[in-house]
Amino acid sequence: MIYVVLAHPYPSQSRANRALVDALRDLPEVEVCSLYDRYPDFDIDVVAEQAALARAELVVWMHPVYWYSVPGLLKHWFDKVFAYGWAYGDGSAALSGKDCLWVASTGGTLEAYAATGIHERPFGDFARPIEETARFCRMNWLEPFIVHGAHEIGEAELAAHAARLRERLQGWLAARDDRAGHSP
Amino acid sequence: MIYVVLAHPYPSQSRANRALVDALRDLPEVEVCSLYDRYPDFDIDVVAEQAALARAELVVWMHPVYWYSVPGLLKHWFDKVFAYGWAYGDGSAALSGKDCLWVASTGGTLEAYAATGIHERPFGDFARPIEETARFCRMNWLEPFIVHGAHEIGEAELAAHAARLRERLQGWLAARDDRAGHSP
Repeated sequence: MIYVVLAHPYPSQSRANRALVDALRDLPEVEVCSLYDRYPDFDIDVVAEQAALARAELVVWMHPVYWYSVPGLLKHWFDKVFAYGWAYGDGSAALSGKDCLWVASTGGTLEAYAATGIHERPFGDFARPIEETARFCRMNWLEPFIVHGAHEIGEAELAAHAARLRERLQGWLAARDDRAGHSP
Repeated sequence: MIYVVLAHPYPSQSRANRALVDALRDLPEVEVCSLYDRYPDFDIDVVAEQAALARAELVVWMHPVYWYSVPGLLKHWFDKVFAYGWAYGDGSAALSGKDCLWVASTGGTLEAYAATGIHERPFGDFARPIEETARFCRMNWLEPFIVHGAHEIGEAELAAHAARLRERLQGWLAARDDRAGHSP
């Protein structure tokens, strides 16, 4: 199962993330949880989230970048769901071996993420906490899927990104089935 | 005024952050907002927070590090309070010129934050999103105050850290008053 955790703080105003997630919805085994729709009061159902993650082989974190990071509710989701004694610690590693794909959109252009740009650093410098969250839980950190300039790109370009993401997940499914088919 | 934004998800269980904040409470001009006490439902009073920040000359973010970052409610506070048209954008820069001090405690030791440690990177690598949030809002990013190994250090060492933080803020107040005294 592919668990897509979508964290757009204003789902009804989403354009880029909506296009990206809509491109995945009808793929086999995809389950989407729109965090801000499901938990508008930030009262996360930890048991339900852990159960979904336990069933997942691939976990997708999808969100617009807010303040160089995940939106607040996704951070709260990390804090609550990736609990000591479940995700890590005391010999536990419930997420071990699962794949993790980070899908993020930014308002700024790629050029803005540079020593000479308004964000002063390459975008990858801001990814470390997110990547290490996955790695500390022994997940396989896949090559992230980043869409820059999400406020500015046209419909055709956005559709191309969405198609590319769909292909990425189709490729993941095919590789997974291929491995399973060749298992002894 | 010094606005201390304290973000401990479980204030009653806090030891390190409690010692740190208690060392500051009776300093002149210090106002403490314990986010998880004040906004247990994550329903942040944006107007009140912006008003407090507008009065502040020094803003302190104090918290235990959760998943290589700020706890979820402090991230949500960034998302809501540092709004477009107030903190940035459209010519606005309400936080411009204010000092910003990041005070963080970690469970891991300093040695754990290294290429060969369990966190795989130096601690500073994880600070970029937080630092750039302040810098993008044109705040002056002061040298952070980090207490590593907060779960393990003894009472005497913790008290020494708290005293050092108190001195740091006393020094800030003295320098501020000195500048004011020499103004034309």
